[in-house]
Amino acid sequence: MLGVCYYPEHWPEDWWARDAAEMAELGIKFVRIGEFAWSRIEPEPGRFDWGWLDRAIDTLGKAGLKVVLGTPTATPPKWLIDLYPDILPYGADGTVRGFGSRRHYTFSSETWFRESARIVEAYASRYGDNPAVAGWQTDNEYGCHDTILSYGPEDLKAFRGWLRRRYQTPEAINEAWGNVFWSMDVNSFDDVELPVRTVTETAPAARLDYWRFSSEQVVRYNEMQTAIIRKHSPGRFVTHNYMGFFHDFDHHAVSEVLDFASWDSYPLGFVEKFPFSEDERGRWASTSHPDIPGFHHDLYRPMAGNKFWVMEQQPGPVNWAPWNAVPTPGMVRLWAWEALAHGAEVVSYFRWRQAPFGQEQMHAGLNRPDRTRSVGGHEAARVGKELAAFGPLPENGTAPVALVFDYEASWITRLQPQGKDFLHEELTFRWYEAIRRLGFDVDMVRPGADLSAYKLVLVPSLPHVSLEALEALRKTDAQILVGPRAGSKTRDFAFPAELAPGPLQAFLPLKVTQVASLRPGAQVVSGAVSGHVSRWREWIETDLPALATYADGAAAILQHGRFTYLTGWAEADLLGDLLANTILPAAGLEPIAVPDHVRIRRRGNLVFAFNYGPESWTVPDAATKRFKLGGPVVAGADLACWEA
Amino acid sequence: MLGVCYYPEHWPEDWWARDAAEMAELGIKFVRIGEFAWSRIEPEPGRFDWGWLDRAIDTLGKAGLKVVLGTPTATPPKWLIDLYPDILPYGADGTVRGFGSRRHYTFSSETWFRESARIVEAYASRYGDNPAVAGWQTDNEYGCHDTILSYGPEDLKAFRGWLRRRYQTPEAINEAWGNVFWSMDVNSFDDVELPVRTVTETAPAARLDYWRFSSEQVVRYNEMQTAIIRKHSPGRFVTHNYMGFFHDFDHHAVSEVLDFASWDSYPLGFVEKFPFSEDERGRWASTSHPDIPGFHHDLYRPMAGNKFWVMEQQPGPVNWAPWNAVPTPGMVRLWAWEALAHGAEVVSYFRWRQAPFGQEQMHAGLNRPDRTRSVGGHEAARVGKELAAFGPLPENGTAPVALVFDYEASWITRLQPQGKDFLHEELTFRWYEAIRRLGFDVDMVRPGADLSAYKLVLVPSLPHVSLEALEALRKTDAQILVGPRAGSKTRDFAFPAELAPGPLQAFLPLKVTQVASLRPGAQVVSGAVSGHVSRWREWIETDLPALATYADGAAAILQHGRFTYLTGWAEADLLGDLLANTILPAAGLEPIAVPDHVRIRRRGNLVFAFNYGPESWTVPDAATKRFKLGGPVVAGADLACWEA
Amino acid sequence: MLGVCYYPEHWPEDWWARDAAEMAELGIKFVRIGEFAWSRIEPEPGRFDWGWLDRAIDTLGKAGLKVVLGTPTATPPKWLIDLYPDILPYGADGTVRGFGSRRHYTFSSETWFRESARIVEAYASRYGDNPAVAGWQTDNEYGCHDTILSYGPEDLKAFRGWLRRRYQTPEAINEAWGNVFWSMDVNSFDDVELPVRTVTETAPAARLDYWRFSSEQVVRYNEMQTAIIRKHSPGRFVTHNYMGFFHDFDHHAVSEVLDFASWDSYPLGFVEKFPFSEDERGRWASTSHPDIPGFHHDLYRPMAGNKFWVMEQQPGPVNWAPWNAVPTPGMVRLWAWEALAHGAEVVSYFRWRQAPFGQEQMHAGLNRPDRTRSVGGHEAARVGKELAAFGPLPENGTAPVALVFDYEASWITRLQPQGKDFLHEELTFRWYEAIRRLGFDVDMVRPGADLSAYKLVLVPSLPHVSLEALEALRKTDAQILVGPRAGSKTRDFAFPAELAPGPLQAFLPLKVTQVASLRPGAQVVSGAVSGHVSRWREWIETDLPALATYADGAAAILQHGRFTYLTGWAEADLLGDLLANTILPAAGLEPIAVPDHVRIRRRGNLVFAFNYGPESWTVPDAATKRFKLGGPVVAGADLACWEA
Repeated sequence: MLGVCYYPEHWPEDWWARDAAEMAELGIKFVRIGEFAWSRIEPEPGRFDWGWLDRAIDTLGKAGLKVVLGTPTATPPKWLIDLYPDILPYGADGTVRGFGSRRHYTFSSETWFRESARIVEAYASRYGDNPAVAGWQTDNEYGCHDTILSYGPEDLKAFRGWLRRRYQTPEAINEAWGNVFWSMDVNSFDDVELPVRTVTETAPAARLDYWRFSSEQVVRYNEMQTAIIRKHSPGRFVTHNYMGFFHDFDHHAVSEVLDFASWDSYPLGFVEKFPFSEDERGRWASTSHPDIPGFHHDLYRPMAGNKFWVMEQQPGPVNWAPWNAVPTPGMVRLWAWEALAHGAEVVSYFRWRQAPFGQEQMHAGLNRPDRTRSVGGHEAARVGKELAAFGPLPENGTAPVALVFDYEASWITRLQPQGKDFLHEELTFRWYEAIRRLGFDVDMVRPGADLSAYKLVLVPSLPHVSLEALEALRKTDAQILVGPRAGSKTRDFAFPAELAPGPLQAFLPLKVTQVASLRPGAQVVSGAVSGHVSRWREWIETDLPALATYADGAAAILQHGRFTYLTGWAEADLLGDLLANTILPAAGLEPIAVPDHVRIRRRGNLVFAFNYGPESWTVPDAATKRFKLGGPVVAGADLACWEA
Repeated sequence: MLGVCYYPEHWPEDWWARDAAEMAELGIKFVRIGEFAWSRIEPEPGRFDWGWLDRAIDTLGKAGLKVVLGTPTATPPKWLIDLYPDILPYGADGTVRGFGSRRHYTFSSETWFRESARIVEAYASRYGDNPAVAGWQTDNEYGCHDTILSYGPEDLKAFRGWLRRRYQTPEAINEAWGNVFWSMDVNSFDDVELPVRTVTETAPAARLDYWRFSSEQVVRYNEMQTAIIRKHSPGRFVTHNYMGFFHDFDHHAVSEVLDFASWDSYPLGFVEKFPFSEDERGRWASTSHPDIPGFHHDLYRPMAGNKFWVMEQQPGPVNWAPWNAVPTPGMVRLWAWEALAHGAEVVSYFRWRQAPFGQEQMHAGLNRPDRTRSVGGHEAARVGKELAAFGPLPENGTAPVALVFDYEASWITRLQPQGKDFLHEELTFRWYEAIRRLGFDVDMVRPGADLSAYKLVLVPSLPHVSLEALEALRKTDAQILVGPRAGSKTRDFAFPAELAPGPLQAFLPLKVTQVASLRPGAQVVSGAVSGHVSRWREWIETDLPALATYADGAAAILQHGRFTYLTGWAEADLLGDLLANTILPAAGLEPIAVPDHVRIRRRGNLVFAFNYGPESWTVPDAATKRFKLGGPVVAGADLACWEA
Repeated sequence: MLGVCYYPEHWPEDWWARDAAEMAELGIKFVRIGEFAWSRIEPEPGRFDWGWLDRAIDTLGKAGLKVVLGTPTATPPKWLIDLYPDILPYGADGTVRGFGSRRHYTFSSETWFRESARIVEAYASRYGDNPAVAGWQTDNEYGCHDTILSYGPEDLKAFRGWLRRRYQTPEAINEAWGNVFWSMDVNSFDDVELPVRTVTETAPAARLDYWRFSSEQVVRYNEMQTAIIRKHSPGRFVTHNYMGFFHDFDHHAVSEVLDFASWDSYPLGFVEKFPFSEDERGRWASTSHPDIPGFHHDLYRPMAGNKFWVMEQQPGPVNWAPWNAVPTPGMVRLWAWEALAHGAEVVSYFRWRQAPFGQEQMHAGLNRPDRTRSVGGHEAARVGKELAAFGPLPENGTAPVALVFDYEASWITRLQPQGKDFLHEELTFRWYEAIRRLGFDVDMVRPGADLSAYKLVLVPSLPHVSLEALEALRKTDAQILVGPRAGSKTRDFAFPAELAPGPLQAFLPLKVTQVASLRPGAQVVSGAVSGHVSRWREWIETDLPALATYADGAAAILQHGRFTYLTGWAEADLLGDLLANTILPAAGLEPIAVPDHVRIRRRGNLVFAFNYGPESWTVPDAATKRFKLGGPVVAGADLACWEA
């Protein structure tokens, strides 16, 4: 189904009815509103102006549209900040970040927690049982603009409390953080300071705890909003709209109280955000890299209920990347269908009409500022028509491949990268790309999730292997491919006494004795499989024979039963060879190799193919397929769907 | 005529007379002094020591030299800052910028305004009617070291006052700035904050207003100084020395009260400052790019009185660029003649003698620290002799080509570039270069200036088209070439309701429906003219036929009557082809194509050619010319002048 | 002899005895301990816990090991900072740098000076006459993490006092600093501010004085610690462990009170720190550049007693460079032998066992965290065995070549580089490399040191030539090669009245009339010698004939008697040609050219060759040599030693 983001407060009230009618005409079912409107709802402390929002919801509802209401906490108004300056967040330089844009709050401010509860209560109690309201979005894009880690007095106070609860005694902190190193011992919890403005690096275990604490503050805050909404709005869903390539908090933990996760899909902007090569950026500038949307669909879908929404879908050029391309004609339609193929319930475009004012005035909408349908709007309308003709989509099943995705792994490797280009998010994405190039669907799951349904489990980056993660690996019969640095850290960010891969030695009888981070350039690996390693290489002590070795004869890949260990950062050639010729056969999986611009995705009995072009692609064995969309030859920026 | 900048306070008093005699001997007529001497004039609060300056002026006057006196407000002394710390400016990080170098003041400090008036009054009342004093320079290089935009409490106070006068009500600000976006509504003028230290981007309309306010503060400050000087110094000129490639305030507005504009010409240093390619920087490292001096002469000359001074002329290597070359022999002479050809009344070298101490001790002068004439000094002396033989230069006339230069365009495109390499100053400079490569003189004029005298008007960058600008375009019969983004913003930094090019749709019946900022790389344009577009591309809705199209068939260039619209950032090939083969013929103008190292400039009945070399250049139809300087073959770093 | 750094406080007490036994078994004689242990010695104000350190020293002593005790002042504990926040240093942005890592103190805090004396007194009085204690290390790595220049209130107070003593009157400062420039005059010492947070560059003479002051604060602080130790610990040595490529204070001055200098040798990490090209970084990533260890050995050895220690020797991969390689097998042994060949008395590995916690947990040790000997540990053990068999090493003599190394030259060229790639440390290193490629041993000496014993003196960078430096050059008969910018500044950071090379004009009758810093690219020099110049070029006024000229005929190299002057930054080709074919013959020195990966070093009657490989190298005339280590063919990462 389609949705759209709408800001009635941005437009004359006499435009609303026509807007609503045109939405319905375009095939839209859901309209998200309200999430930045605090100053118009409560223009002064305690004085509420609900009228306009009442009328807006009424207008939409009368047009047959369902409303998703956003709580307005991403934009506390000026008067609130003036009343309670302790709401403001602090930057990594230890100075306050002021009012003037959005997200100017720290999750640790008790005042903010209370005021947030107050405004959510007000929203939820007024609209909780409104028949036009189908569900809720909490806040907006937690963490946007680098707002998870804050370094102010409120944060310090909350962190000390968190430590008190977690560690009980200062001695326990000294032990856990290794405070004997550099005379960092604390004599009380009040001796703990934030890791900010120090002369050089602070204890990594302390910083990891600060990150865990900060992530848990988001969880706690989201739980508070969700609980208030559920109290007033029975039968409605609650979700939150996550961002792309953003790993500063544990989205799995936040999702526990949500009905499903949502995310905001800006395929072109993300081409500039992710560390692609300049060549890749040039190649995919106007279509997006073919794995950017899928990576996120497959990350967020399993978080809650095996379903998700795209809450904001790019409808044309945006305003916030270094360069902002116009999408290749067809892509606005393709991205929507691709999300649906990956299990999305709703694809909601951002936004209905391009705003003529404000920071995002260069961000396209489904309509132009002159009330005319935009290029992207025409593509969305085509999706609307196609969907109407298509009938209901089948349920989304379980993929054959799981990829274990750990937010702490991102924090640990950022806190101590050891090599400046060892980037967790890049490593994970490249493994995802490798398996998708072989035609498989993927579920990205948290460490500890049940893996028994999978035939292949990929573990690209898991420095800390928790007991739960270990158990899940033990209990599956899947083939398991483990990447470098796995098990190299304890919970307290320390070397495991038995060396890496730590607890994974239960499955992989080997020890990592030395690691090198490698300057740009690649090392040859050869043997049963071959290719290249770059960025990272480990030396191993083991009795296992090597599946492949480095040029100096040292082991590069080791196998033991259904576990395979990669000692380095495998380039695409090595990873592809290893998967296709060793691991997939062992897993009993048959790949369908696709070119770099095509991806396949199954939903129930349907198979979809998406071509990021420009070259066309011919569906294999096309004569035997029954096509529901497109046909045997899929043009660039086009798609096909057939019955499996 | 020649001038020089001199610092008697830097030298033993018994050197002055010989210095003055040597100046006169070299052909110098004007000597600028005094602009950094506050601490020597007023060493303690209210205690003035005029004696040395009296004697310095007297010594210069007796040698037949005319003095240009600079007010010393660029360097408030330590005791003044200690008395009134509210004078200090604040950086973009919201923290104070301290005493210790120069320009440590904010234009918004009321104390500073009062103290400035006091010292200017003191200077002007003492020397206003001194017969040796020919004129005045206010302050020194407004804005140098990033000092236009300040972010302190004095600035906030003044800005709120400015807003109160401009908007009358908070509601008017909310409307103009689009404050409904992200709940930024203000309930009073005291709710307005400076755009500093915010979590992310603030409202662009607010920042544009802050820039306008800051620019107007300069205007107001300069008016104050000028009024005081005029009161005490009848019959003397008042000017200010602007900088190169500096657009942070509206120089047109500041110039309104000046007798003429001056500027400080450092052709080699600017090669490093402007965003040239590394190849270009290597090519022009020791001569300057051939359009750097001319661009500024033609920008500043029309500002007041169709004349100007070069107040500081580079005499050799300087100290402040990343690399500081020695000029190719001949260039110090060439730059002086080139300034004169562009209409300069005086070319004043900076400085008489290289200082052996202080920040600028590596900055050459006409004399070395050992009281010997420098290499550049010998070139200046040659100019002095040539000028004496040359006789008076004719009046400067009006050029056939106008280029509309808008300071607000610089602010708007910097506030929201949309593409990271969309640089207003580069675009403008490249258009200037293109028309200069075709041999034309150019007047750079402000939007709204009378255009009736011109045959061709270039409008490379004018996002906001004011009523005055529109009227001026209507009232001329010139051919008009308009660049991308024209008319894309209202006065309040918003999308025009009718889409871009906004009010220019009166002349160009078309609408811009989509824009893309392009990653590095070029797109082919072909048709009646051909070449390449990079960086920026627009999509157009119109009934007009295209003069040239992109590879996908979309319109790249559109014409309607005497208006031509370029939908992208034209590379030199496309811009040159368009001008030479379509627009210039329509304008009835005959180009003289010159190579990349040669430029031509007319002054009255004289034609000058300047060769930035190293290749020599032969004057076309040389046999028919009467040469006043040089001859038919112009060597590198040399020039020629003949009668038209 | 071998040593090791050990942290008993990091390990269970019941591990100590086995650790000590294994050290002795490996051939270790000295164990450095205690330098980061303040919080465990004095966990609360005034409450000391000596027991564990008593027992640790006792355990080591009983195993026949000698202890080097480090004072713990690099890591003041939390309670001390809470009691006396004025201890904290301030960054170049003028804000405080907090507790949380190490070196969180400013040398200028009087409180800190007193508290440091107190803890040093406590350490020294307890262990001064302990028979197991062989010597002392003051603090740890002065200046690490950019901690020499601090910009807080304590620093300002101390600086004003220093100026009062040095200048007596404010007028003297105004004169020395050129304060007339930009009205910077001070009326009292309290008018002086720190060069921080200013609008643009402050007076270079003021900043040079601030650097001198800051350096002298280190000298004074180290003298205090040394004096206390000597009082309580007669017969023991005192040293300090310097860093590599670090020039922020005058190590010569600090060394005056030491028995010998030590330094911390991290050959691989320094490959990333020094401004090598990316090609060079790739070539030397796993071995180090062959001159990195030698450069520092030859710099620190002459500082005190013509001997030195390597206090910390890299034993494997480290944790702090952008990329951290595993050393090529053999290099951990090679580096140790190379240090000994350069005159080291002891090579002490950092550290005994890799810590499993804290910031440096990725830093290898001689043992792995699992109590097993590491790869590097095995190489160290081989050195231990070889040393036992080798017998005592001969005394280190005087080299034939001196290189004058001036810390102020580093400060002056950083304060005003004039060309952004004019890097003092790179220039000096390249001259060192050039003479080492010709097979010579080098003593690096301070300006003013006695040069009479040398045949060749290299002066790559000496902007300020002091009277002492001048006298030393006068009194030697050596050939002297002088690099660009020599004598270009007075003591007060001013142009000399007679122009550069200032006082060196006594030996070199020439004047520098212009200087250019050159954009990347090289200029050809030809004549009696030939090659290239880049980065810097000077123009000369002289009657001397040129030994070689630039393409435009201007002099590039000038000679007068035993002095040769280089007017530019000579590339390796020019410098090699000049040395080999002109200067060395004049000095009566016979070079032995070695390839880029081999270096030779003599100690007494022994000659060592070190091969940084991978190519092997054959010792010339090998048949005539008696080898003590290795043989005629030296493999990559291997070495040889024979009798001369």
